[in-house]
Amino acid sequence: MEIAFIGLGAMGTPMARTLLKAGFALSGYDADPARVAALVPDGATAAGSTAEVAARADVLLVMVQNYAQACAALLGPEGAFAALPPGATVLIMSTIAPAQARELATHAAERGLGFVDAPVSGGPTRAATGDLSIAISGDPVAVARCQPVLDTLGKQQYPVGDQVGQALTLKIVHQLLAGVHIAAAAEAIELGNRAGIAPAVIENFVMHGAGASWMFGDRGPRMVSGQYTPPRSALAIFVKDLGIVHDLGASVGLPLPISDSALALFRQAADAGMTHLDDAAVIEIVRMNGEGQNVTK
Amino acid sequence: MEIAFIGLGAMGTPMARTLLKAGFALSGYDADPARVAALVPDGATAAGSTAEVAARADVLLVMVQNYAQACAALLGPEGAFAALPPGATVLIMSTIAPAQARELATHAAERGLGFVDAPVSGGPTRAATGDLSIAISGDPVAVARCQPVLDTLGKQQYPVGDQVGQALTLKIVHQLLAGVHIAAAAEAIELGNRAGIAPAVIENFVMHGAGASWMFGDRGPRMVSGQYTPPRSALAIFVKDLGIVHDLGASVGLPLPISDSALALFRQAADAGMTHLDDAAVIEIVRMNGEGQNVTK
Repeated sequence: MEIAFIGLGAMGTPMARTLLKAGFALSGYDADPARVAALVPDGATAAGSTAEVAARADVLLVMVQNYAQACAALLGPEGAFAALPPGATVLIMSTIAPAQARELATHAAERGLGFVDAPVSGGPTRAATGDLSIAISGDPVAVARCQPVLDTLGKQQYPVGDQVGQALTLKIVHQLLAGVHIAAAAEAIELGNRAGIAPAVIENFVMHGAGASWMFGDRGPRMVSGQYTPPRSALAIFVKDLGIVHDLGASVGLPLPISDSALALFRQAADAGMTHLDDAAVIEIVRMNGEGQNVTK
Repeated sequence: MEIAFIGLGAMGTPMARTLLKAGFALSGYDADPARVAALVPDGATAAGSTAEVAARADVLLVMVQNYAQACAALLGPEGAFAALPPGATVLIMSTIAPAQARELATHAAERGLGFVDAPVSGGPTRAATGDLSIAISGDPVAVARCQPVLDTLGKQQYPVGDQVGQALTLKIVHQLLAGVHIAAAAEAIELGNRAGIAPAVIENFVMHGAGASWMFGDRGPRMVSGQYTPPRSALAIFVKDLGIVHDLGASVGLPLPISDSALALFRQAADAGMTHLDDAAVIEIVRMNGEGQNVTK
C-alpha cells in the first residue's frame, strides 16, 4: 500500500515516521520543504507538490493544521484530489469542523474517491509510538481500506458511524472539555497563587479529589513553571478548536457559555502574540486580567 | 474524648455514624430533631439545642450547610461557643469562605477556644466509610487535639498551614475546578446529543483521552439518565461554593470568567427550582437555553 502524507508538522512528522517504521511506502509533502527532507532518511519519498505526492497513492493521509491548509492542499486543479488515482481513499486526521469535512467529502465523491475522517488525540509522544486514540467515521468500505494505516497509528480506536463528520463531531465535543479544563486549571492555579496556597499543595489535593482532570495534571506543572517553549501543544490549536466548538453549537442552536469563556481567553492570548507558545501560557492572560499580583495572602 | 456534632445532613449523618462506630462519645444537634433522633440507635446522645450539645465537648465538629447556619449555631448568648468548656476546640468541616472562617475564629479566640478548618471532599459514601479527603489548617496545638477525629474520618489528609482559612482556600480552589467541570460536562453531553453522537460513545472517548475529568465520569451518567433524585450532591452546594470562588477571586483582584460562567448556570438552575436536585441537573439549563432540540444530526 502506498501512502501519501500531507502535513508534516508536530503531529504529522512522528505519525509519518511510525508508518515508515511499520514498512509502508510513504511519500511526503509539506509546504515547508525542510520538513519533507527531514523524513527522507527514514525512507520517505520527497514530493515537491500536492499533485506529485498524491499521484500513486492508495491512501492520502491529511494532517495539516486547519481547514484553509486542507483546501489549499486538496482542492483546485493543482490539488491532491485531482491527482489521486481513481478509487483512492482520503483519510483526514486533522481536527477541522464536521461541516468542513462533509464539504471536502463532497469534492472527493465527485472524483470517485473514498473519504474517512479520523481525528486523533494523544500528542506527538503517542504519535511517535503508534499509540494515538483515533475516532473514526465514514463509509465502511473506505474505512476498511484505511484500516492498516489506522491500526499502525493507534490501537485505541473509536468507531462512531458511517457518516463523514461523526468522528470529528466526537473530537469537537472532546475538545470542548479539554479546552475548558485548561482554562479552568489556569484560573484555579492563579487563584491559589494569589491566595497564598502553594501549587504543589493544590496539585496534590486536586488530583486526588473530585476536581481532577487529565488537563490539570498535564498542563498544571507547565503553568507553574512558566515553561511554554518548546510547545507540547500550541495555543493556536485551542483557538481553532474552541472556535469550531462554538460554530457546532450555533449550528444546533446551543449556546455554550462555559466553552465561549475559555475561547475568549485563548483568543486574548493569541492576540497577545502567544499563538506558538504551549497552551499552558493561557495562565498569563488570567494573571494579566487581574489587578497587581499576590494582593493578599 | 467527647465530640459535639452540629449539622446532621447528607454528609454530617454518615460522618457522625463513622465516629460513633469508632467508639467516640458523641452528642448530636441539628435544627431538624428527626435527624438527631435517627442517630440515637447508633449510640449518640440527643441534644435539644446548640448550647446543650456543646456543654461537655472537647471537640465541637461543625458540618452545617453554610455560613448563615454556622453563625446561627455558634454565635450569640445561646450559641455553642458560649456553652463550650474553656480549652475546647472548634472543628469547622463545612465549606464556607476562608474569610468567614477567620471571622468565626476571632469569636472563638475571644472565648479561649481552639479553631481548625478542615473541609472535606468525597461525598456521603466516603463519609460513611471514614475515607474522606480532608484539608487541614489551624494552630498546630488545636489541630493535634482534633487529630483522632480527623484520623477516623479520613486517611487522605492534606495539611495546608497553621493559619485558619488556608485549608478552606485550598478547598475553594478545588471547587472552582469541580464546579466548572460539571458545567463543562453538561455542555459537552448536550452538544453531542444535539449533534447526534451517543452518550456512551462520548464517555468512552472522553474518559480515555485528554478531556477526562473525575466529574465527567461521575456526573455524566446522571446527566444522561436524567435521574436527579435522590441527589448525591445537591445543586445548592455549587451555587454556594462557586459564589465563594467568585468572592475569593474578587478579594485578590482576580476575574474568573470561566468559573463565573459556571456559577451563572448553577444560579439559573437554582432560580428554576432545582436547588435540591442532584447537580447533574444543570444540564437541563444548558438544554433549556438552547433552541428546540436535536436540531440536526
